[in-house]
Amino acid sequence: MNTYGDMFRVTVFGESHGKAVGAVVDGCPANLPLSEEDIQKELNRRKPGQSIYTTPRKEEDKVEILSGIFDGKTTGAPICGIVYNKGHRSKDYEKIKDLARPGHADLTYKLKYKNYDYRGGGRASGRITIGHVIGGAIAKKLLSYTFNIKIIGYTIKIGKIEGDFSYYKNPDIFENEKSLESLIENIENNPLRCPSLNAYEMEEYLKEIISQKDSVGGIVEIVALNVPIGVGNPIFNKLNGELARGLMSINAVKGVEIGVGFKAAELLGSEMNDEIYFDDSKNIKFYSNNAGGILGGISTGQPIVMRIAVKPTPSIGKKQRTINLKTFENVEIEIEGRHDPTIVPRIVPVAEAMVAITLADLMIKSGFIHPCRL
Amino acid sequence: MNTYGDMFRVTVFGESHGKAVGAVVDGCPANLPLSEEDIQKELNRRKPGQSIYTTPRKEEDKVEILSGIFDGKTTGAPICGIVYNKGHRSKDYEKIKDLARPGHADLTYKLKYKNYDYRGGGRASGRITIGHVIGGAIAKKLLSYTFNIKIIGYTIKIGKIEGDFSYYKNPDIFENEKSLESLIENIENNPLRCPSLNAYEMEEYLKEIISQKDSVGGIVEIVALNVPIGVGNPIFNKLNGELARGLMSINAVKGVEIGVGFKAAELLGSEMNDEIYFDDSKNIKFYSNNAGGILGGISTGQPIVMRIAVKPTPSIGKKQRTINLKTFENVEIEIEGRHDPTIVPRIVPVAEAMVAITLADLMIKSGFIHPCRL
Amino acid sequence: MNTYGDMFRVTVFGESHGKAVGAVVDGCPANLPLSEEDIQKELNRRKPGQSIYTTPRKEEDKVEILSGIFDGKTTGAPICGIVYNKGHRSKDYEKIKDLARPGHADLTYKLKYKNYDYRGGGRASGRITIGHVIGGAIAKKLLSYTFNIKIIGYTIKIGKIEGDFSYYKNPDIFENEKSLESLIENIENNPLRCPSLNAYEMEEYLKEIISQKDSVGGIVEIVALNVPIGVGNPIFNKLNGELARGLMSINAVKGVEIGVGFKAAELLGSEMNDEIYFDDSKNIKFYSNNAGGILGGISTGQPIVMRIAVKPTPSIGKKQRTINLKTFENVEIEIEGRHDPTIVPRIVPVAEAMVAITLADLMIKSGFIHPCRL
Amino acid sequence: MNTYGDMFRVTVFGESHGKAVGAVVDGCPANLPLSEEDIQKELNRRKPGQSIYTTPRKEEDKVEILSGIFDGKTTGAPICGIVYNKGHRSKDYEKIKDLARPGHADLTYKLKYKNYDYRGGGRASGRITIGHVIGGAIAKKLLSYTFNIKIIGYTIKIGKIEGDFSYYKNPDIFENEKSLESLIENIENNPLRCPSLNAYEMEEYLKEIISQKDSVGGIVEIVALNVPIGVGNPIFNKLNGELARGLMSINAVKGVEIGVGFKAAELLGSEMNDEIYFDDSKNIKFYSNNAGGILGGISTGQPIVMRIAVKPTPSIGKKQRTINLKTFENVEIEIEGRHDPTIVPRIVPVAEAMVAITLADLMIKSGFIHPCRL
Repeated sequence: MNTYGDMFRVTVFGESHGKAVGAVVDGCPANLPLSEEDIQKELNRRKPGQSIYTTPRKEEDKVEILSGIFDGKTTGAPICGIVYNKGHRSKDYEKIKDLARPGHADLTYKLKYKNYDYRGGGRASGRITIGHVIGGAIAKKLLSYTFNIKIIGYTIKIGKIEGDFSYYKNPDIFENEKSLESLIENIENNPLRCPSLNAYEMEEYLKEIISQKDSVGGIVEIVALNVPIGVGNPIFNKLNGELARGLMSINAVKGVEIGVGFKAAELLGSEMNDEIYFDDSKNIKFYSNNAGGILGGISTGQPIVMRIAVKPTPSIGKKQRTINLKTFENVEIEIEGRHDPTIVPRIVPVAEAMVAITLADLMIKSGFIHPCRL
Repeated sequence: MNTYGDMFRVTVFGESHGKAVGAVVDGCPANLPLSEEDIQKELNRRKPGQSIYTTPRKEEDKVEILSGIFDGKTTGAPICGIVYNKGHRSKDYEKIKDLARPGHADLTYKLKYKNYDYRGGGRASGRITIGHVIGGAIAKKLLSYTFNIKIIGYTIKIGKIEGDFSYYKNPDIFENEKSLESLIENIENNPLRCPSLNAYEMEEYLKEIISQKDSVGGIVEIVALNVPIGVGNPIFNKLNGELARGLMSINAVKGVEIGVGFKAAELLGSEMNDEIYFDDSKNIKFYSNNAGGILGGISTGQPIVMRIAVKPTPSIGKKQRTINLKTFENVEIEIEGRHDPTIVPRIVPVAEAMVAITLADLMIKSGFIHPCRL
Repeated sequence: MNTYGDMFRVTVFGESHGKAVGAVVDGCPANLPLSEEDIQKELNRRKPGQSIYTTPRKEEDKVEILSGIFDGKTTGAPICGIVYNKGHRSKDYEKIKDLARPGHADLTYKLKYKNYDYRGGGRASGRITIGHVIGGAIAKKLLSYTFNIKIIGYTIKIGKIEGDFSYYKNPDIFENEKSLESLIENIENNPLRCPSLNAYEMEEYLKEIISQKDSVGGIVEIVALNVPIGVGNPIFNKLNGELARGLMSINAVKGVEIGVGFKAAELLGSEMNDEIYFDDSKNIKFYSNNAGGILGGISTGQPIVMRIAVKPTPSIGKKQRTINLKTFENVEIEIEGRHDPTIVPRIVPVAEAMVAITLADLMIKSGFIHPCRL
Repeated sequence: MNTYGDMFRVTVFGESHGKAVGAVVDGCPANLPLSEEDIQKELNRRKPGQSIYTTPRKEEDKVEILSGIFDGKTTGAPICGIVYNKGHRSKDYEKIKDLARPGHADLTYKLKYKNYDYRGGGRASGRITIGHVIGGAIAKKLLSYTFNIKIIGYTIKIGKIEGDFSYYKNPDIFENEKSLESLIENIENNPLRCPSLNAYEMEEYLKEIISQKDSVGGIVEIVALNVPIGVGNPIFNKLNGELARGLMSINAVKGVEIGVGFKAAELLGSEMNDEIYFDDSKNIKFYSNNAGGILGGISTGQPIVMRIAVKPTPSIGKKQRTINLKTFENVEIEIEGRHDPTIVPRIVPVAEAMVAITLADLMIKSGFIHPCRL
């Protein structure tokens, strides 16, 4: 099922080596200023070839909006955005067409659907997240336009190398407009989207991984700022539940946590609970944000903080044992070509997109954004 | 929004101190043998007062089925199960009615809905998971009856004390019928639902926590066995995405991981990828299960392995700072009464329930179970 | 599937001779004043035994609200309302348990689900519309409270006898508060819910039908007043489409039309099109209402006018040919007991309920009513 | 909301004068043979310029499939089909851009969304039913491939001229393969898609309407053959309810009826009820089909019979009164250009498409067609 969201709905389509990939975004209220450029800039953050740490495949990934815009603004009608696929060398995949690459979805897709476009991973390819990013770009614009919501993702771990964020521990990094801008700049200027002081160590590590024809995972943190108090509809439409589903929809994500996440297991109630106070202007404030901005499935007004565990790219040059589904033989496979040694930096914009879509949908359903027009 | 699932749908209702809590289960195929006893035995695993480590409130939690059963079997019509609430001392809550208990959903519910049944946490109370368990009991019966699927949850960590499962590392613990039975027995006989060798350490630790009027979190692992290959509908109806949403729908859950989960971040591709082989009978097998039984959002036929991070019970006797929403004052609060020092053992059946409902829904949507009748 | 609506959702459950029938209403915004009396008065309009033209079965149909209300107002949590079944003589149905009563759903339910609670029609009984009416009563209250919307249904035809409404042709019957009240009084005081001048002819006709142990159909018109311009979300969530589905969900309804309906087939464009003008206060007005208040699936601000075709009660005393599904024999059947000679007057409140639920849902989705609280 | 269906889902997009119109079909099981030709032949039945009774605009309406097909068969992935718009003279619409054409959706769209692509009716144009037909073509192929289901629509009334079908009254017209083929041939060879003996009278009548610069409505009947017993999921997912919603989703449809429809109002129970018998081979048969093949919302195995009332084309050359939404003036309008004098023959393939999509969705949800693969 390829539609995400109830009121703000993104339907994605396309295969890695098919004619096109894209998305139909339905339920975006009318009168939002929107251009292809708004979408293109997010696609550019996702596309391959941005650094030596991403696959060098040359894909332009140029988006075309087919519907839903009039006079530079949305009309409330569905917005279809497509990216035509170009220059794929599908014949590279001929020799692995009956094999199940370990860690890939070849096996499950083949056995579930029987007819599987194996070229480049087909429907299970990371390339189909172009649709996610199209939807996310529109959601981001909507959230920014209506509530100045910012969604910021960055790498905090590559393999065993944990980022050093001591520099940022000043609690108001997210509250100060200027430090925020500088943070975003640091993220986007770093080839790993890691603003940490020791990001260069990660780069060194990755170079080594590349030389070993191996790959490695990592952790991405995503923060959503300026989300008003009250977003999320319990019991089964909680903000955290929907975020978890959205983020888990990205291939390679093996875990999601909110606020302190798994660390919560080790905390005492007296440590975990975020105490509350009125500041001098009678605004509601918290002494901490262990909850990650969500209580009872509803946003508290604090930053929403999420982290996702990203597994290593399954395509590696090393020899692996697997099966041939046609001959029923046990075989060995070495995957050729250059692949991302880690998918982490390119997952950042996709994760942001899923957070944005989830928030847009829930903000409409929670009554913050009008469902039909701005 | 209080309905979970698309084809197998559970709608929950009720408040902690209202007349009743319950669930309507719609989409259960006809001809499944089902009795109140099937549901009651799961509710008994959830109810308070099972040990000294759970709140001693005496709640019978007796379920009554109002519809959907004829001749001892389901008819395809919705099954309504209710539990009348009894013996609540609602006046205990008078003095905190305008306060926002830290770590609770009082604040967000009050500000979102304006009219909030604050007694016992109202709609945000853990008590409403009785509805989840009703739905889960029916889902479990359906999964067991059709595919012999077993869903087994257990505690693996309480606070900083990690369970020692070296004893179980024999890989076929889940494959051997006898060792499985003994595992389940160990789980249910332990007051913390922890079958680990060092569970007694956790008990000691909890006694200390109780004496400090504090609480603590933990980690629960849930395993689903005998799930056939092919369950889960990408892209946005993936098995892992839906499980994450279902499990995050439980209050207190701050993180969800599948397979090796967050550990995937540190692994190399050559370590993470589960290599594949045909055994002598040409059955598809894997050399490992780092993926936790899911590839590309679709089950692989291996055990589905999940873990959830459970935060400490927010109700603690220690003094905490918070606000009075009526007087706009900063105040201090000490929550009276006995509360669960950890909610972990009682979350086990609720987590199993959410896994069962998620699987039932997806197995219908993936064509394994007929949507209307068995 | 027993849930209706996306944002204002009604889930119905129960069988004719089971323990209870009822509904869970989810998505009703918080702060709507609501009592059991609000629901009871609508159930009283639906219940049997209101006149000699309805089945004399004595059913009290007393509703009990189990959840979702606090301090006399809704909380945003799901509202469960149930009616316990009483005094059914289920053994009356023993002798027809293997037969398929013509015009009834016995045949299709039995073959679809295999396990069918045949007593009193089970899940296919008209009795289960108690759930519809519970949902509708809450929707009506919401619509009335927020937009003073009134939903008025009445009989316009019984068998071949068409009501004479010449008296009402004054166009402002619906706009004048006083004439509206008098209309409603006329409807409710008439045993057939027919405010027509010749309703007595229908009564005479029905007496004859009763004496023949036969039954007859009719037509009900429903009007929704004060619906603002802009309700309905094209393309597939149009106001007319959703109304048609809602009304067709009532057993016995064989046709739905909006505005002039089937008469539109015979009209010229120049006759059909409702011309538009600004009145002196620059309000948008129409010279006619052939469209029935809907253009392009969106309300125009005019009264929404619908009509439904109701088939004759299938339970008749006359001898009919049918089959025995157990013995595979062709048999004859004479259905015993007293049944409604026409279901038309009792369908009126059910049809109003479906219109109300549909409007409530669409008004939330169209941004007129806040999804979470008033 | 632009998605129709739950398991077989069609999402339509595009505007009359935008870049493209199309549909994404999600949930079509894998392994269905499908080509662009399958879709094109249905689009050709819908396109303008087929006869002197349809608008002569030259639109090629050439479909392109972008995704979801591999090796000539569906893969279970979403199928995106688009038709690029060509040669529209958008400036024709400049002079009516602030007017609300009577009978059109200009008024409601403009007031609801504020930003409206008025060119050619924009999103409210009949042209967007290209998306419906794309979805319907795939649904038809699926239904035909799996159950040999045939969906046949034809005109039975144009204005006041009722078709004479006495010739067809032989009850087995639909059962005899040869007479069925000849019926379909008669339909498609007639410019009005009316296989009646007096269709030429309708043509004469239409010529007169054209000369008067007026338009006229009509009635279309649609029959679905070979639908197995058991399709439809009560209470709110009934086959008739869903068909009514689907058909009402087509602009211009003002009424829907099933079986005898509104005539049911006049019948006695003893006339309406379809008596049942076993034929010599113990097949279940009925003596009549007043129910139109549906009892209790579930198919009976008889032909499903529906009729829709189609209003006259709202675009007429005659002078009409309306308003200018910018100047707030009452004005007169004469709509230029050639428009369909009746939309009835071109609605036939669209109505068939909506029936096909509805059936495909319900047959999956009722367990007749596997949700993932054939």
